[in-house]
Amino acid sequence: MSLLVVGSIALDSIKTPFGKVDEALGGSAVYFSCAATFFNSARLVGVVGADFPKKYIELLRRRGVDVAGLKIDGGKTFRWKGEYGFDLNTARTIYTHLNVFADFKPEIPAQYRDSDNVFLANIDPSLQLDVLKQVDEPRLIACDTMNYWIENKPKELKKLLKHVDIFFANDKEAREFSGEINLLKAARYIFSCGPKIAIIKKGEHGVLCISKDFIFSYPAYILEDAFDPTGAGDTFAGGFMGYLSKAKRINEAVLRKGCAYGTILASFAVEDFSVNRILKLKDKDIRDRYKKFKMLMHLEG
Amino acid sequence: MSLLVVGSIALDSIKTPFGKVDEALGGSAVYFSCAATFFNSARLVGVVGADFPKKYIELLRRRGVDVAGLKIDGGKTFRWKGEYGFDLNTARTIYTHLNVFADFKPEIPAQYRDSDNVFLANIDPSLQLDVLKQVDEPRLIACDTMNYWIENKPKELKKLLKHVDIFFANDKEAREFSGEINLLKAARYIFSCGPKIAIIKKGEHGVLCISKDFIFSYPAYILEDAFDPTGAGDTFAGGFMGYLSKAKRINEAVLRKGCAYGTILASFAVEDFSVNRILKLKDKDIRDRYKKFKMLMHLEG
Repeated sequence: MSLLVVGSIALDSIKTPFGKVDEALGGSAVYFSCAATFFNSARLVGVVGADFPKKYIELLRRRGVDVAGLKIDGGKTFRWKGEYGFDLNTARTIYTHLNVFADFKPEIPAQYRDSDNVFLANIDPSLQLDVLKQVDEPRLIACDTMNYWIENKPKELKKLLKHVDIFFANDKEAREFSGEINLLKAARYIFSCGPKIAIIKKGEHGVLCISKDFIFSYPAYILEDAFDPTGAGDTFAGGFMGYLSKAKRINEAVLRKGCAYGTILASFAVEDFSVNRILKLKDKDIRDRYKKFKMLMHLEG
Repeated sequence: MSLLVVGSIALDSIKTPFGKVDEALGGSAVYFSCAATFFNSARLVGVVGADFPKKYIELLRRRGVDVAGLKIDGGKTFRWKGEYGFDLNTARTIYTHLNVFADFKPEIPAQYRDSDNVFLANIDPSLQLDVLKQVDEPRLIACDTMNYWIENKPKELKKLLKHVDIFFANDKEAREFSGEINLLKAARYIFSCGPKIAIIKKGEHGVLCISKDFIFSYPAYILEDAFDPTGAGDTFAGGFMGYLSKAKRINEAVLRKGCAYGTILASFAVEDFSVNRILKLKDKDIRDRYKKFKMLMHLEG
């Protein structure tokens, strides 16, 4: 089954205590689709400027990403510059130049309208809703958001969520959106808005998946050398949705495996800048880490 | 095999958004020993004042705690008053009256000197070391500490750690003690000081157990209604050490089960003030929650 992602494509300049990079390939749709391709091709919808390096488009294409929905606008590509301290938990933004992304109006190509699985990466919830009007009848819709939209477009976000099956949020966002400190209560509030499943990302502390009928909680994969956390959440979503998009039915076992693959792909992503580590990854690396991840939380009867 | 605990016994006055309690039974040695008794009797060494309610001593005795090492001094019992906000993560201390605890010099009764398993709860590392001089040759020594001793008695703490097998710390303490942000690196520093195993407690985010040969990471048990987090860490240690003290050999499987029981007992402890919930607990409650905890982090091949 097909997988569509709509989100940002960016040129990221990043400094961490371990190194720096200028104008590297980034953006939620890029991290997502590169991770998803380990399981399925991804149809990418996004916008870049005329200055966007052709080699990056070529790189995505070679990776198995369908770039028919990538619009090349006349202006400049979205650029972000940020810096992390030693704990790598929060970035300090030096600048955000939205450029062509400021006027992004996602247009879904005709051949993408039959998409079975849709991921709406973090953009304005009104635009996320616009995307849904342009697709026929996906069997699975997931979305991400951020504190900015929770605070500034709560009505639009709630309108969107009526159509969403899986809501991704980090723990802070889930608490802010619901007004509940307790994450079970926060999830219940999310269910009341529409989604049947809440995926609560906790960064170095792992992930929590809550539905009305079950709950599971996985730690993060433990790394000796995290390098750059940019894109970890979108890589998680890409691994998760890539796996789910190939499953005939979405049930608890599939969601558990999806979260495990998301965790593992995110753990690779943070080992280098941009999608560098993901591009070098072999299927065997993923299988090996899956086994280690399973052992990490193994408990005998 | 026998289990000895040395630590504080306190009268706690606590306010949370969900209720308050005055002069309730508390202290690290109390939480620890009440949890441990689900697996083994605990030999308790500590000090209280003449004002310490006799009913609390009776309660500990009925619970299976050996109170022969409980010294009743002439002064007043250690008192702590604190308050938690909605997130329950950090307490605001209103007062700490050390009282008789200020001059606590642990004296290990002759019949405790053969203790096989020893837990040194968070007290001055010089006193923790004194305790070790008074016991013959325990097969397992574990200790806890806090930021105050890391900052003010680092030499004494390091001297103590040479004799310690298992070092308990929360993530912040492990980072502060080692000067390393990465917890694997922090654990390696801890190993260089003596301990073979680091148990890194992360509160609502679970626990990490690291040795030179293996690592595992468990989430916390997910609760809808956490009520009062006081004593959760010591309850964890009590469940963990109680289970370990009954095991013939300490290996990875035993450590995993110990951490699971610690997690489960701590999850019950936070459901009520003081040791109230722990005292009402049945073995079946623990078995049921163990199964649920296992499912929480279950992942298929």
